[in-house]
Amino acid sequence: MPDRVRASVQIAPRTHQLQEFPRPVIGPDDGLLRVEACGICGSDLEQFEDHGGRRTEPVIAGHESLGIIEEVGERAAQRWGVQPGDRVALESYLPCRACDMCHRGEFMSCRTGSFAYGFFPTSRKPALWGGYAQYIYLHPNTLLHKVGKDIPAEVAVLYNPLGAGVRWATHLGGVKPGETLLVLGAGQRGIAAVIAAKAAGAGDVIVTGLARDARKLALAREFGASHTINVEAEDTVERVKAITQGNLCDVVLDVTPMALEPVNHAIECVRHGGRIVLAGLKGRRPMQFFPDAVIQKGATIVGAFGVDSRAYKEAIEIIESGRFPLHKLHTHSFPLEEAARAIETLQSDSDAVCVSVHPNR
Amino acid sequence: MPDRVRASVQIAPRTHQLQEFPRPVIGPDDGLLRVEACGICGSDLEQFEDHGGRRTEPVIAGHESLGIIEEVGERAAQRWGVQPGDRVALESYLPCRACDMCHRGEFMSCRTGSFAYGFFPTSRKPALWGGYAQYIYLHPNTLLHKVGKDIPAEVAVLYNPLGAGVRWATHLGGVKPGETLLVLGAGQRGIAAVIAAKAAGAGDVIVTGLARDARKLALAREFGASHTINVEAEDTVERVKAITQGNLCDVVLDVTPMALEPVNHAIECVRHGGRIVLAGLKGRRPMQFFPDAVIQKGATIVGAFGVDSRAYKEAIEIIESGRFPLHKLHTHSFPLEEAARAIETLQSDSDAVCVSVHPNR
Amino acid sequence: MPDRVRASVQIAPRTHQLQEFPRPVIGPDDGLLRVEACGICGSDLEQFEDHGGRRTEPVIAGHESLGIIEEVGERAAQRWGVQPGDRVALESYLPCRACDMCHRGEFMSCRTGSFAYGFFPTSRKPALWGGYAQYIYLHPNTLLHKVGKDIPAEVAVLYNPLGAGVRWATHLGGVKPGETLLVLGAGQRGIAAVIAAKAAGAGDVIVTGLARDARKLALAREFGASHTINVEAEDTVERVKAITQGNLCDVVLDVTPMALEPVNHAIECVRHGGRIVLAGLKGRRPMQFFPDAVIQKGATIVGAFGVDSRAYKEAIEIIESGRFPLHKLHTHSFPLEEAARAIETLQSDSDAVCVSVHPNR
Amino acid sequence: MPDRVRASVQIAPRTHQLQEFPRPVIGPDDGLLRVEACGICGSDLEQFEDHGGRRTEPVIAGHESLGIIEEVGERAAQRWGVQPGDRVALESYLPCRACDMCHRGEFMSCRTGSFAYGFFPTSRKPALWGGYAQYIYLHPNTLLHKVGKDIPAEVAVLYNPLGAGVRWATHLGGVKPGETLLVLGAGQRGIAAVIAAKAAGAGDVIVTGLARDARKLALAREFGASHTINVEAEDTVERVKAITQGNLCDVVLDVTPMALEPVNHAIECVRHGGRIVLAGLKGRRPMQFFPDAVIQKGATIVGAFGVDSRAYKEAIEIIESGRFPLHKLHTHSFPLEEAARAIETLQSDSDAVCVSVHPNR
Repeated sequence: MPDRVRASVQIAPRTHQLQEFPRPVIGPDDGLLRVEACGICGSDLEQFEDHGGRRTEPVIAGHESLGIIEEVGERAAQRWGVQPGDRVALESYLPCRACDMCHRGEFMSCRTGSFAYGFFPTSRKPALWGGYAQYIYLHPNTLLHKVGKDIPAEVAVLYNPLGAGVRWATHLGGVKPGETLLVLGAGQRGIAAVIAAKAAGAGDVIVTGLARDARKLALAREFGASHTINVEAEDTVERVKAITQGNLCDVVLDVTPMALEPVNHAIECVRHGGRIVLAGLKGRRPMQFFPDAVIQKGATIVGAFGVDSRAYKEAIEIIESGRFPLHKLHTHSFPLEEAARAIETLQSDSDAVCVSVHPNR
Repeated sequence: MPDRVRASVQIAPRTHQLQEFPRPVIGPDDGLLRVEACGICGSDLEQFEDHGGRRTEPVIAGHESLGIIEEVGERAAQRWGVQPGDRVALESYLPCRACDMCHRGEFMSCRTGSFAYGFFPTSRKPALWGGYAQYIYLHPNTLLHKVGKDIPAEVAVLYNPLGAGVRWATHLGGVKPGETLLVLGAGQRGIAAVIAAKAAGAGDVIVTGLARDARKLALAREFGASHTINVEAEDTVERVKAITQGNLCDVVLDVTPMALEPVNHAIECVRHGGRIVLAGLKGRRPMQFFPDAVIQKGATIVGAFGVDSRAYKEAIEIIESGRFPLHKLHTHSFPLEEAARAIETLQSDSDAVCVSVHPNR
Repeated sequence: MPDRVRASVQIAPRTHQLQEFPRPVIGPDDGLLRVEACGICGSDLEQFEDHGGRRTEPVIAGHESLGIIEEVGERAAQRWGVQPGDRVALESYLPCRACDMCHRGEFMSCRTGSFAYGFFPTSRKPALWGGYAQYIYLHPNTLLHKVGKDIPAEVAVLYNPLGAGVRWATHLGGVKPGETLLVLGAGQRGIAAVIAAKAAGAGDVIVTGLARDARKLALAREFGASHTINVEAEDTVERVKAITQGNLCDVVLDVTPMALEPVNHAIECVRHGGRIVLAGLKGRRPMQFFPDAVIQKGATIVGAFGVDSRAYKEAIEIIESGRFPLHKLHTHSFPLEEAARAIETLQSDSDAVCVSVHPNR
Repeated sequence: MPDRVRASVQIAPRTHQLQEFPRPVIGPDDGLLRVEACGICGSDLEQFEDHGGRRTEPVIAGHESLGIIEEVGERAAQRWGVQPGDRVALESYLPCRACDMCHRGEFMSCRTGSFAYGFFPTSRKPALWGGYAQYIYLHPNTLLHKVGKDIPAEVAVLYNPLGAGVRWATHLGGVKPGETLLVLGAGQRGIAAVIAAKAAGAGDVIVTGLARDARKLALAREFGASHTINVEAEDTVERVKAITQGNLCDVVLDVTPMALEPVNHAIECVRHGGRIVLAGLKGRRPMQFFPDAVIQKGATIVGAFGVDSRAYKEAIEIIESGRFPLHKLHTHSFPLEEAARAIETLQSDSDAVCVSVHPNR
């Protein structure tokens, strides 16, 4: 292993620069991961654009890291149950594990807030906090999961979108065997939700997309969606009523980024007593909302914040089971030098589904 | 018992007329209830005003009926476990008990929809579907609960607002022992929520109200609210932050009718991972809503539709336990002839909390 | 339709006699079902043997009836959503729908107790309470589910064992996607549990059986069991430890009839905090049990009593989905005249899995 | 603070010896607690007797420690939210926080097993692992809760039995407002369960005890038990049937140590679909158990293993609320020199309820 670690540092909105950092010294409670692949999601796009202007310091982004344990402290090895050479997937969040919320096992609501890989500035030692780098530092609080080494890195790195699909559709949405799920949005999260829902025995799964999402909708059908709707050519609510014979949907998941209309579609398409999961951020924009509609339907709306360990574990089991042709979800790979281009591709290429950066290729 | 039954019939918006109806013939599966008292809530106000213009036919309103079994069919007596002379409280809803939702025990989501006492026209036989009458017809699907006969009717009739408090604050809101609850609105439902939450061991309970609600807020404190906020004199969100030392509230319940601002207060005041229950109808008006706020907090919003058997049963147990001075909740009683005035009183008298009509007094 | 209905009546332990009964007169709230097929389970075997001597009166047994609506009252048609000619599957239990437990949706705990098809004597009018007859009377409280008419009756009648599998493995056992399930017993319920668990995304499913169950264990593997154990040749607990690498099982389901040792195996094989579902009746025999073992493991033991609507619905969806080769589960069909032989076959033929009686063939 | 720490070390079954240990050096992640009081429970009795012979090395026992933060590392102070001078209550267990069970928030099922205060030998550095000492070492994984300093130490130290009551009766037992709870056993855990259940709104609470428990049963009634049963003079099952008018109990909690008969009483006294919590260890002895009884009732049996953070938090809120006269629960205090006598008192004095050791008095 080299003494210097190369990383793609975001130094300004939409601007990356290759930099080198010293290799961290590892103690008994931490470790170092050689990054095989780092996935990209909507949060990366937001961070790249610097929405809200929160990022002023240089940062190594990338919070969906898969890699090989390069070095691990003695106590960390015991706690994590890993040895150098093991392949692991990292969780994004680093909960404090000590506040009252963490004590209750509600790590997502950790009182310390948004403490996550890919979002610390390089000024914070030891700088290597993101996946767009050859190595990532393993903080003692890191949550990680072993992944089988015989799986192609492009497939194994899907643990993150699949984890989101599992948590949003089946844990938060609570879709039960035989129940009907409507997924609004056909991006990687939408398709991952189809996979997770079908893996959990869901009945009909309906997916919406734009005209340009035709290939993604076809992919959704291949993964088990029973119906797809082109929202530019069809009336979503009318189609859903027809498909469900007026019974509407048990669960609706919105993963559309920036679009506000789908939230009201969700309320119209959910059955009395049903559940809506909101997972598509809207750039802090407001919408017109009728509280009475939620009350009259006795509906539940859940904000989907992040992915937790149980969901990651189930996602990895779906990956390792080999029962879905997951390689079809992954469309583009880039070397470290092209991390910015990787993000731009996910942003602008409508056929891009899952895109990853491979810093050591 | 007389051959004719007197009732206060709503014949037009804000207009009642005393009418007489024939005494129904009771078969093996149904029954007849002599009404002791019928409570009044926000739905009555809406119906009285004929919001939305849905009521075109004459109707005997009143869906919070307490009374004495006058007559009961043999099979009904066995199923309901009652005999003539027993005192019972009626549930408002009449689920079909046969659709898939009823099979699942989700009676509130019965596919037959809004099938409830107090909302059938008098043209539907046997006309006596509402509590503003001397007698109410007990349909075979009626859900009823026995209530101790030694409790004053004014207190026993509180089973309905207390049932709402139980379901909204503790079942849907899920407030756990020691948790902090914020109740937005100091009407009968708000105070009932305080009682239900304290009965279930809630920690701090904060209640908001208008300047004119001073007596109601005092009553809320008497029933266990730890803090009250006059929203016209204080900033709700700032006060809640101060009271909770920045931890915000585990559960927020909005029972304010027509007011939209409290919904956004609820989102601001709930902690990460917390729950919001919406129970105050807004007259079908829309509001400005930020989906991202719900997502970023991982919050859950539940629409509170009606009250179910479990909540009614708990409410009756609270009443029968005698552990709260519930008589203070009841402020006004009216005879049948003044049913319309009873509704107007709840509407316009800011000191009115729980108001009831007593058709046989 | 004939005026007389033929039925196989159990007149003494292990003794059936063909008898004829008058066709019932159907009113507005009830109906009549032409029986296509009636499944047989362990309860039938118990009833046939008259364990405990509870059966002293003649009875038409059979509580897993599939058939075609022959006649249905106007109100019943509306409530059930069916018309003559529809194919439906009956639930066994007839809850009162009026006691406090039914009000809570806990129909299984109906205060009226064991009110079920197949267990009323013929002396109770109109006699046709069981599925081993050409027609079965549809009591107003009947719970029924539509089933697609294009499915072979031998497959459609599997709704009952599959419903048990769904409820016991996934609802009561709560097996989650990726979790490990141990099924003790390879009869129809055991294999149905494999199917239900795999349909719900379970990870490894391990099934035990006797040497003579070799074909059933092979069938379990075909339906998705990852491992099978011949308990006469292998040590169950040791094999489970080896298979799970010492992590033991998240959920254990015991469906072995009469065998007591599996209950202790269940306790040994479940992980800390795991769940055990007991579903195999033991002929009222006692066993040696260590309470401390349950406490030290923080384990949960659930008694599996019956099947509920949600489970039946999911089972029918599994059947209609066509995703499992369910015809392999059904091994024997008999005409009405051979109802007793059908029961004896399930009892004594170790290759019999699911057996049905077809009264109108 | 002195350089040497005095502790009461268990050097053999039923034998304590006062020893001195060096004051530990505290780093950034750990801390030191000056013990105000340490409670005693059934596990202490078992440990004192050395049941099973597991204890061969000297150990400082005591796992219910209340104290004042003497010293705390910088990172630990931030994570725990405490400063020197704060009063805190320690949780007994030290989960690894890194295994898959801990990741799921199921700390009780931590794969590392029985890692708890009061059970490490003094040979393990820094020796101070138990509460029968002037100071206790705060390991980085310690879970602790702040407690108000104005509460007498004898009352504040009740956080542990009350935490058990909260978890066993209301979390694991799930007793809901108005439901009936039967508590088998009138020791500190039994009475604590009464308090927790009443705090959560339980309806009737029935408590059993022996003839010599008369004072404890009176105390149970004072804390809200509706009925008490002297099991030596009355038939438990018959009394419960009479009290509940045949409806039996929603939840039954067994806290009797060593007694096996109560487990079968629990099964007989629980209603169909009800829950039984087993919390009283039986010295590894077996009992006669009828699996069919659990199945026929559709009952759930839960093994109560330990207390978790949520329960401790609720317990401390009950203590701080001042709504129960908790000082009556505490019967005996001893100095450090008499730690063995404290344990013997709880063991042999039938009027002892809660007993504590105060090492710095």
